[in-house]
Amino acid sequence: MQLRPELDSTSEVPLYRQLGSYVQRLITAGELQGGDRLPPTRELAGQLGLNRTTVSAAYEWLESEGLIQGAVGRGSFVLGAPSRPAGESQDINWARSLTPSMFSSSGSPASNVIDFSSSRPSELLFPLEEFRECCSEVLAGPRLQTLLQLGSPLGYGPLRAWLLTRARQQGFAADGDDILITNGCQQAVDILRRALTQPGTKVAMEEPVYPGLRNLFLDAGAELLGAPVTGDGVDLIALRRALDAGAKVVVVTPSFQNPTGATVPAAARSALAAMARNAGAVVIENDIYSGLVYAGSGLPKLKSFDTNVILLGSFSKIAFPGVRVGWIIAPKPVIARAAELKQLTDLHTDQLSQAFLLQFAESGRLARHEATVIAAGREKLRAVEQACAEHLPGCRYHVPDGGMNMWIDLPAGLDSGALRGLARQAGVDYLPGRYFSVSRSLDSGLRLSFAGLTPAEIKRGIEILGEVVNSAVRSRDDASRPTLAFV
Amino acid sequence: MQLRPELDSTSEVPLYRQLGSYVQRLITAGELQGGDRLPPTRELAGQLGLNRTTVSAAYEWLESEGLIQGAVGRGSFVLGAPSRPAGESQDINWARSLTPSMFSSSGSPASNVIDFSSSRPSELLFPLEEFRECCSEVLAGPRLQTLLQLGSPLGYGPLRAWLLTRARQQGFAADGDDILITNGCQQAVDILRRALTQPGTKVAMEEPVYPGLRNLFLDAGAELLGAPVTGDGVDLIALRRALDAGAKVVVVTPSFQNPTGATVPAAARSALAAMARNAGAVVIENDIYSGLVYAGSGLPKLKSFDTNVILLGSFSKIAFPGVRVGWIIAPKPVIARAAELKQLTDLHTDQLSQAFLLQFAESGRLARHEATVIAAGREKLRAVEQACAEHLPGCRYHVPDGGMNMWIDLPAGLDSGALRGLARQAGVDYLPGRYFSVSRSLDSGLRLSFAGLTPAEIKRGIEILGEVVNSAVRSRDDASRPTLAFV
Repeated sequence: MQLRPELDSTSEVPLYRQLGSYVQRLITAGELQGGDRLPPTRELAGQLGLNRTTVSAAYEWLESEGLIQGAVGRGSFVLGAPSRPAGESQDINWARSLTPSMFSSSGSPASNVIDFSSSRPSELLFPLEEFRECCSEVLAGPRLQTLLQLGSPLGYGPLRAWLLTRARQQGFAADGDDILITNGCQQAVDILRRALTQPGTKVAMEEPVYPGLRNLFLDAGAELLGAPVTGDGVDLIALRRALDAGAKVVVVTPSFQNPTGATVPAAARSALAAMARNAGAVVIENDIYSGLVYAGSGLPKLKSFDTNVILLGSFSKIAFPGVRVGWIIAPKPVIARAAELKQLTDLHTDQLSQAFLLQFAESGRLARHEATVIAAGREKLRAVEQACAEHLPGCRYHVPDGGMNMWIDLPAGLDSGALRGLARQAGVDYLPGRYFSVSRSLDSGLRLSFAGLTPAEIKRGIEILGEVVNSAVRSRDDASRPTLAFV
Repeated sequence: MQLRPELDSTSEVPLYRQLGSYVQRLITAGELQGGDRLPPTRELAGQLGLNRTTVSAAYEWLESEGLIQGAVGRGSFVLGAPSRPAGESQDINWARSLTPSMFSSSGSPASNVIDFSSSRPSELLFPLEEFRECCSEVLAGPRLQTLLQLGSPLGYGPLRAWLLTRARQQGFAADGDDILITNGCQQAVDILRRALTQPGTKVAMEEPVYPGLRNLFLDAGAELLGAPVTGDGVDLIALRRALDAGAKVVVVTPSFQNPTGATVPAAARSALAAMARNAGAVVIENDIYSGLVYAGSGLPKLKSFDTNVILLGSFSKIAFPGVRVGWIIAPKPVIARAAELKQLTDLHTDQLSQAFLLQFAESGRLARHEATVIAAGREKLRAVEQACAEHLPGCRYHVPDGGMNMWIDLPAGLDSGALRGLARQAGVDYLPGRYFSVSRSLDSGLRLSFAGLTPAEIKRGIEILGEVVNSAVRSRDDASRPTLAFV
């Protein structure tokens, strides 16, 4: 990306600040993203007709603002989402992680890059013909007129009934539970955040964590307490510490957590629920990945151990993320309050989409599609496992049993943010660890989202990543080798 | 509705508090609504086997809580949405005004009542066959796979381009403007509320005002300054007073305001925009009704006088409110910030619905449907005008030139909330004035939403309303007539 600031040498604002502010605006607008490399100072100075010290001063100012980071000999990089004080201007870099990358520092089109950066299903698996059939059935049906009219904030009645009945049959919804339909799980969390927290409320969450979840609570001024994720999911000792420190809300993804892929074992689930209950804290169980089991069998939900748990579900990770339908299953008073907030927020969720998804589910097509997705996921996971074993010998990782994501810890001394530009140039992309931090530095980690790729892409992508990592390891070792110093 | 509390005479909680809490829960759950009459104390005492003083004490407690109001000789009524301190528990009665009434104090099914309480289009006018065609075209098209995948927080690109181009052609969007798609206008306001206000921010709005708008800002702790609406829309002198008092955000519906139907004349529009600009306040122009012109011609938007105005649009009042798609047109920095909040809220708006509506608009079907809706609206308005002149001689009202709503002021001494139970029993429903108040008492006013009804229903409904009003006027006059007092 060419930097083309409009600089005014007659202004009272010094040139370095004008240049710095220009870059700041690009970062705020998402046109420069975490990991992007800024042009070398000499090059940019020449291009803009500026003194090189002016450009250096601009970069120093940007660094002092926490927007970029200089790495000796490698240039200056835009930083990813820093933890920021609540109420300050939004950081939107994390947000871009959910949408296709709009900017590549290497200048090569994103289509040439094997992209592990999005936690989403592969659209190649979408059963378009079956979905069309469902839509046609709904559109031809007797309810179309009602679906196009204003509906209930709680959601489309037949979909609510179908989901709640299924949840009761599977033993994780009780008689005292009710259901609210939301625009996907993101809105479910946003509504619960409004219902359960105020500025200063302490919220415990996993670390690393999905940034969309972290930023929601940060934006509302909550105080976040991160509990590290191990191979067995969230660390219960750390979680207890967070509860002892006053956490009133616990947000967890017990199955195939994003970004780690880690799962809390069955035995620890009842302990987790009991621990929160005894501390008087509300548990939000993000259950969107639990259907994607590729190895072993599914585990009981937290909510089946404690009816007070608030469960979040969605078809988005199995079916169609563009169709924004998720839900909250929780005790009736929680749902009553959430429905009030839902109505304040946007009246109700799109009714046509709810009806389409119900038809997809009720007709048995969802179950068939789920089987296809799981079979494909098994292949993808196998590719991940083989490629990691072959190409990432110096890295630490834990291959998950399902879901869409896994976490890689790079060899000592390597920084996943700094490495990202090189990786993109080499043809592979991922999200650096720092995107997922709550309070710890996660610079050595990175997330690989494999569900959107084919097994062949996965193998080739991890092979490229391995080359980039190994080359960086060699540079590191060369740099630390003792040399004769002619001083 | 039968009251069936489970009372425990062995409890430490006194019986009157148990009964009071039970009724409170019914009100909170929306099962009892503003205007509903509670059973007489004697009747309820007999039915529940309680002492009458116990029931009276429960009613007194409910009244002290601001939940019901007793009117001598007429019984006790559930109160509508009171203005409440921000951050307190939500009042959801207003919410029910947007959905079909689920409770009728007369016990008769709602279908027997001519319902003027919802500001929505008539589903009888929905062009179902044309909508089906649009859906089929989209579903058969090459973009289906993309539509089902995760999209941009800004909205579906082709829909954004279509809307923005149209806005530029019509002269109310400038080069510096951009567009964000939201889940209808309610979410547009919610997002702007998050972007523009914090607790204590002063927000000026019309009074009476749409409760969904008022409650959003109240919920966020904003300080509301109501500017009365006259026959010529919001009163500019009152608005200036609000700006002088420090209002930083102004929310107005210049065309066919909900609930009054009033419209700001062309000459006053540029004055309004200039007044806010000079005071450094942001104007949010709620433009959802402006297409529904039944008499005269449309007026220039506020945004055409000042490019900084934030314009809210939607197809919901013309086409299908169940398909949740609205938009914000505003200067690019506003849209950039709104898009961040949109992504935090729910990632993005449902893509299928956006594509369906685009197809409906692009293919010319929207324009055809709009012509049908306007022709029908003209008939409805004529029915309103005739029926009001004939049946509401003692009322004050201003027949609007378009939109969906009008405001009626009852003869002196009549209370629209207290009268609502009688009106429902007689076969007509409306929303009492107090639902729409910001800081003033509006007990003598009521909203008639006529767009969802046929001309015949409108005539018959206003005739019934006239009978109820005239009968109440006679009772009032009888009560005030001097009598011989045998004291």
